[in-house]
Amino acid sequence: MSDQGIPFGKVPPEILSQFALSRTGARRREVVIGPDIGVDAAAVDIDGDILVLSTDPITGAGKNAGWLAVHVACNDIAVHGARPVALLVTLLLPGESATAHLDRLTTDIDRAARDVDVAIVGGHTEVSGAVTRPVAVLTAIGRVERSKLIQPAAARAGDDVVLVGSAAIEGTAILATDFADELRPAVGADVVERAQGFWDGVSIVTAALLAAEIGAIAMHDCTEGGIITAVHEFAVATGLGVRVVVESIHRREETDVIASHFSVDPLALVSSGALLVAARRELDIASRLRDAGFQAARIGEFTATGRRLLLRGKSIPLVPPARDELWRLLEERAGI
Amino acid sequence: MSDQGIPFGKVPPEILSQFALSRTGARRREVVIGPDIGVDAAAVDIDGDILVLSTDPITGAGKNAGWLAVHVACNDIAVHGARPVALLVTLLLPGESATAHLDRLTTDIDRAARDVDVAIVGGHTEVSGAVTRPVAVLTAIGRVERSKLIQPAAARAGDDVVLVGSAAIEGTAILATDFADELRPAVGADVVERAQGFWDGVSIVTAALLAAEIGAIAMHDCTEGGIITAVHEFAVATGLGVRVVVESIHRREETDVIASHFSVDPLALVSSGALLVAARRELDIASRLRDAGFQAARIGEFTATGRRLLLRGKSIPLVPPARDELWRLLEERAGI
Repeated sequence: MSDQGIPFGKVPPEILSQFALSRTGARRREVVIGPDIGVDAAAVDIDGDILVLSTDPITGAGKNAGWLAVHVACNDIAVHGARPVALLVTLLLPGESATAHLDRLTTDIDRAARDVDVAIVGGHTEVSGAVTRPVAVLTAIGRVERSKLIQPAAARAGDDVVLVGSAAIEGTAILATDFADELRPAVGADVVERAQGFWDGVSIVTAALLAAEIGAIAMHDCTEGGIITAVHEFAVATGLGVRVVVESIHRREETDVIASHFSVDPLALVSSGALLVAARRELDIASRLRDAGFQAARIGEFTATGRRLLLRGKSIPLVPPARDELWRLLEERAGI
Repeated sequence: MSDQGIPFGKVPPEILSQFALSRTGARRREVVIGPDIGVDAAAVDIDGDILVLSTDPITGAGKNAGWLAVHVACNDIAVHGARPVALLVTLLLPGESATAHLDRLTTDIDRAARDVDVAIVGGHTEVSGAVTRPVAVLTAIGRVERSKLIQPAAARAGDDVVLVGSAAIEGTAILATDFADELRPAVGADVVERAQGFWDGVSIVTAALLAAEIGAIAMHDCTEGGIITAVHEFAVATGLGVRVVVESIHRREETDVIASHFSVDPLALVSSGALLVAARRELDIASRLRDAGFQAARIGEFTATGRRLLLRGKSIPLVPPARDELWRLLEERAGI
């Protein structure tokens, strides 16, 4: 075991269970949500309110990396019904171009933090030989009244599964940004320009806080692996089955055009900006969110057991893709 | 500017001011202590208590790195009079020996977290090509009643400066661990063994919380650059002058023997485990801390202006060393 490697990417659950989840320091009564596989935020009871906490790294200072990192961190907080308040930012930079990397990251992070009304309250910045490209670790802190903390386990069979937002708007924005020159002649400059504007839609904080207020039972934000993966994760988190009608998942026209150009499946393409909400059927939360100006649709329901997709009326098993379509495409392109 | 490099290590203050401290997201009324040069923890008012937050990276999985990282993070919290409650841990691992690195880090972190009664509530573990050796980013969260938050600016001229603990116990433990084979024949196996036990003394959490209860006005933990650097930082943070009697700084015998062997100055050697406390003279906090079983001594006082050391009765300017004696020694040894 002493020399076992692990492939690049998230560490596999069985290794996490063995080495990390069994080693969580002291037991403290304040811990409401602790670390676990698939848990993206922690909750700590501080005798008054609940603190919701989330930490995540980004590796690389690509276009909009800092912007995206802030929104993803705040999204993790908001799905628990908590308002993001503060961010801590640790930046590790390689020696070369250190100020250029720093400049881009802090500009991006600052802009996104203003966008979601969150203060950056601390951090640490260091140039280190341990990194080959910029690494940022963002820790987001939010708060919610104790009685209003939202946890997936509260969902039950029969609850609506509602999608707020559209599939793959993040993936669409990334493709439109990184492959602009290839896309313009193929799909038109206007489509590319509109798709690049999708960056503005990667935050689900406002939608999640409104959904919580209306009466959401549980929420889950979509990220890597797209809507299909998020639906699967949501079902696992609730401990329920789920049945989703594929045709009811909203996609913007630009997403369809660009996904088609690259032959990628928009339902398995990275989807920050899309939010899954569970709510009691009688609440009709989808129409109430639409009334408030959000794109929202009931896409299915939680069931007692089984995870199924209904595609053109045919029921097929819901199996999350092995990896996000974006990484598949980037690897394919790198191989050309 | 677009290609300017920065030397390895902490990013210089002028670059931080330009690129980071001017970009701190939204202004929120909850922020009590925000990011600034030399500020090691943030404080957020959450309508009830004050949250104290600190984040710091360690790069490398050397002996005791994870152990030390937890204690340093919790020390940063405790100097504000706050009890550390929870930790978030982000681990980035190189592909090779990933499980061995993970195993050592999580074991160390878990042990230290139990030691200071802190729960690990969340995290993220990833294998990444962005790192050449393990990187851990620890975020510590503590809490304190609003009226009991301790901030350096409350100190005033005439306050005692008290040292709790001894100089360079961290540096002594590192040298005794890393150079054990060289030291044993030179200073004796018993000295080396006792010095290796100094690891157990790097937490100042208990001492700081007790000092806060007794009536400490301000506190500062010692880390890189040793006691001399910490005294200088403490004076800068309070906005006061300071006068310290060098002979009153306690050093353990093992520290003197080992520092002498390597010709390093123990007062400029990394000193986690030592705590500086400012308190009103009439409180005689040093003797009250001694009564409670701590090594504690009045080493000087805050003054209106000037930063001076009294060495054998002679007043000399207090100038922090350019770098920690440990790094100087390691570089010297690497050059041989």
